[in-house]
Amino acid sequence: MREYSVAVVGASGAVGQEMLRVLQQRQFPVKSLRAFATRKSAGQKIEFKGQSITVEDVEGASFRGIEVALFAGGEVASSVYAPKAVAEGALVIDNSSHFRMDPKVPLVVPEVNPDALKQHSGLIANPNCSTIQMVVVLKPIHDAARIKRVVMSSYQAVSGTGKAAMDELQAQMQALVAGQPVPVQVYPHQIALNVLPQIGGFGPDGYSEEETKVMNETRKIMGDDRIAVTATTVRVPVLIGHSEAINVETERPLTAAEVRDLMAKAPGIKVVDDPAKSVYPLPILAAGQDDVLVGRIRKDLSHPNGIELWIAADNLRKGAATNAIQIAETMLNLALV
Amino acid sequence: MREYSVAVVGASGAVGQEMLRVLQQRQFPVKSLRAFATRKSAGQKIEFKGQSITVEDVEGASFRGIEVALFAGGEVASSVYAPKAVAEGALVIDNSSHFRMDPKVPLVVPEVNPDALKQHSGLIANPNCSTIQMVVVLKPIHDAARIKRVVMSSYQAVSGTGKAAMDELQAQMQALVAGQPVPVQVYPHQIALNVLPQIGGFGPDGYSEEETKVMNETRKIMGDDRIAVTATTVRVPVLIGHSEAINVETERPLTAAEVRDLMAKAPGIKVVDDPAKSVYPLPILAAGQDDVLVGRIRKDLSHPNGIELWIAADNLRKGAATNAIQIAETMLNLALV
Repeated sequence: MREYSVAVVGASGAVGQEMLRVLQQRQFPVKSLRAFATRKSAGQKIEFKGQSITVEDVEGASFRGIEVALFAGGEVASSVYAPKAVAEGALVIDNSSHFRMDPKVPLVVPEVNPDALKQHSGLIANPNCSTIQMVVVLKPIHDAARIKRVVMSSYQAVSGTGKAAMDELQAQMQALVAGQPVPVQVYPHQIALNVLPQIGGFGPDGYSEEETKVMNETRKIMGDDRIAVTATTVRVPVLIGHSEAINVETERPLTAAEVRDLMAKAPGIKVVDDPAKSVYPLPILAAGQDDVLVGRIRKDLSHPNGIELWIAADNLRKGAATNAIQIAETMLNLALV
Repeated sequence: MREYSVAVVGASGAVGQEMLRVLQQRQFPVKSLRAFATRKSAGQKIEFKGQSITVEDVEGASFRGIEVALFAGGEVASSVYAPKAVAEGALVIDNSSHFRMDPKVPLVVPEVNPDALKQHSGLIANPNCSTIQMVVVLKPIHDAARIKRVVMSSYQAVSGTGKAAMDELQAQMQALVAGQPVPVQVYPHQIALNVLPQIGGFGPDGYSEEETKVMNETRKIMGDDRIAVTATTVRVPVLIGHSEAINVETERPLTAAEVRDLMAKAPGIKVVDDPAKSVYPLPILAAGQDDVLVGRIRKDLSHPNGIELWIAADNLRKGAATNAIQIAETMLNLALV
């Protein structure tokens, strides 16, 4: 089997670290691995397949010879270095939001719109974490009964913000347990024992950046501009695993049993739905898994064509690293790289 | 001013304790106070207005001479002792769900349906915590533009379950910080660093008891059976303060500015809505307050007649103790007791 020279940009961050793990766990055919980060982290050693790799400073680095570059270094790094990597011949899979809504850039969840990869120009955008897990479950419903409208509320883990936020939640818990003042630096308010209805800044329409991503990216990935979406995205004191309450209105009514059946047959989904036994998706259950967990599937009693779902997924894996690597795998399978 | 002989049943629980605080803080005209609990807590001393009061065993107790009895001892205590208290001449305000949907029992939020008190037969039901805070904000919208449908997702504090759950969340945080095994007794799963899409048991329709309460009680309190409501209620690792993402569809479209104006003029509501400055309702901000905090008010981009809101309120106060005592105050003002 052919192997590829791979790079991870942002290798010291929460998503970058997860990418290194997922590349190994999924046995992605890596011939050689290079790890990049900002100057601050350059020189660090990371382990990959038993080898010690030195993190390189991304500034001034050449991407020549790299075939697949996974970008997880944030907006600025992607906007500056991703086009450079493409120009130097790498296939870039970019986890930032920078290129996602560019009509020339495919925005892909392999279970949903793999064919969009065929129109790529060297760069594929990896969608927003809370969007990925939602479209994985929306796709089979849309194919079966056409989705008209989605009302989503999220319960998002702090790892979506990054390592500093994970550290801060743990430091806050420690301070609360010890009865000491609670350090607040990463978020505008304490996150331990609290929930924050803010993810990113706010637009003039009152929606947060995260909410706007969910609304716009869903339509682009699903390839249907008629799907109406509204979202309230909320940060909760969870380390890993985003959860979502999803209310779906379809053109043709579906029973809960039909939806459960659609979910059971769809790729990338695990049905976890026996509420009487307290079996339903949980973030601590989703953490470490690649599937999107779906449960609490029920007929919406407020609308004849409504369905209620509750989902959870690992935001660092399916919401970021796993999806990016699945994109790379799909490119390989389609012989696009 | 006339003063009343008052009893609190369930005086050692989270809501009972809050009732004792709220009676004092709101200067309810208490002539004498009696405190009841189960045998386990009988004999405990509680403080009320600087006096030490001994908690009495509710079993076998006489309610004669008590004018206002606030019940916060749970379903069983209410089902057994509330009718007895009524028979012995007390006006009962009951925080349990036992009598709420009884057509002969008023279910009252004073800002919403005070007139329902006039038809009482000795017992008034205090609604479910997550319902109370929602109807306070729905009422002015309904009056202005008639609400057709509500899609609600909740983020509920563990104090809604009671003191044992508050203790367990804190014990779990302590164990996590210390790297020790996490004790799990109150909920079917760990609640620290997790969220649970289960509040109460589940019905054959797949909705939880809490969700069903929200859906049914909202229609009864609002006095309009045509309002379609669906809810997903979720327990989050917060000690005090329930939050809710509320999507409202009205018959007549409202702008966000109109809704903000309605909220600003309505009783029991505090508008906390300047997201650009990270000002929005938070459970830790709502804790200790009697008002329902509302913010993130925006036009729902998925529906021409949709509005999105985010609210938070103290579930032990407005969600339970404060509302019960406001009911008693309203009864006094209406000369119904």
